[in-house]
Amino acid sequence: MIIVLRLDHRIPRDERASTHVALTARAFGASGVVYSGQKDGSLEESVARVVTEWGGDFFIRHTKSPLSEVKDCREKGYRIIHLTMYGVPADPALTAVKETENALIVVGGSQVPIEFYRAADLNVSVTNQPHSEIAALAIAIDRIRRGKEMSAQETEFSGWKIRALGTERGKKTERRPKE
Amino acid sequence: MIIVLRLDHRIPRDERASTHVALTARAFGASGVVYSGQKDGSLEESVARVVTEWGGDFFIRHTKSPLSEVKDCREKGYRIIHLTMYGVPADPALTAVKETENALIVVGGSQVPIEFYRAADLNVSVTNQPHSEIAALAIAIDRIRRGKEMSAQETEFSGWKIRALGTERGKKTERRPKE
Repeated sequence: MIIVLRLDHRIPRDERASTHVALTARAFGASGVVYSGQKDGSLEESVARVVTEWGGDFFIRHTKSPLSEVKDCREKGYRIIHLTMYGVPADPALTAVKETENALIVVGGSQVPIEFYRAADLNVSVTNQPHSEIAALAIAIDRIRRGKEMSAQETEFSGWKIRALGTERGKKTERRPKE
Repeated sequence: MIIVLRLDHRIPRDERASTHVALTARAFGASGVVYSGQKDGSLEESVARVVTEWGGDFFIRHTKSPLSEVKDCREKGYRIIHLTMYGVPADPALTAVKETENALIVVGGSQVPIEFYRAADLNVSVTNQPHSEIAALAIAIDRIRRGKEMSAQETEFSGWKIRALGTERGKKTERRPKE
């Protein structure tokens, strides 16, 4: 089980980036996103709409105390993985994480308090260059799941109403008939 | 050589997403980004600032005719790879792309004209779920480069003024002394 903790969401600045974080987490097989910063009903609705249409049990919820979330997860035995451009290389650090292990992946904004660096089991970088927490999250889950997110068979989205059928050219979708 | 073509940039909606696309392209070892839609001096400056500080030869430029860019690249022998959630799975489609090959990776907005599906050699999906063009781009380059973007030795950023030194906890940077 993988949960993503998105720090310091700000309206309107982070609206799209946080949506991308959440949808990437879902598409790659995480169970849910907890976010701190400003509570954002519109972000939660966007994600809920995708879950209703495309399936799965993905959750999103706000927290006032992200550090407590880290501590709670730690007590439950989760591995705490903080993504930062200042960390140790994701290859090979993330191959030390077992695929079956529970993990909390922390993704920040520009200024992550030092407490999160301290609370993490792993401060991991996806390249040591400035880029995108969305890109970093995708690669991190890809490495932990050993690429299994790429196989539709491995990542099921139960209860989907619509799904895309991979095709060489154009767009094919299937809509499940109403029961 | 990998070039990224970002379609239909809109101000202000895509300002951050396009910045993330460009910085991800750079961090993962692409040579530059060409973008269509609205010309955005602020986007170009943000990317140029990162290049000045963190090094490398990465370019960004605007185009009025993205389809001509595709055709030009095709004539030069580039493989045209369009990322879409409706395409064939990136694993294994992108392993057919040789690491040494020139590639143009096309990433779109919500409505990509059918011409781009037709013009592409490969319409590739990074999962068939809705998520993020930034995440998809990261995985696509990762697969084409066989993960080499993760090795600082493999992806050099010549002329850097500052660089991050991967460390287990906290932030370490090195600033190159002025000559």
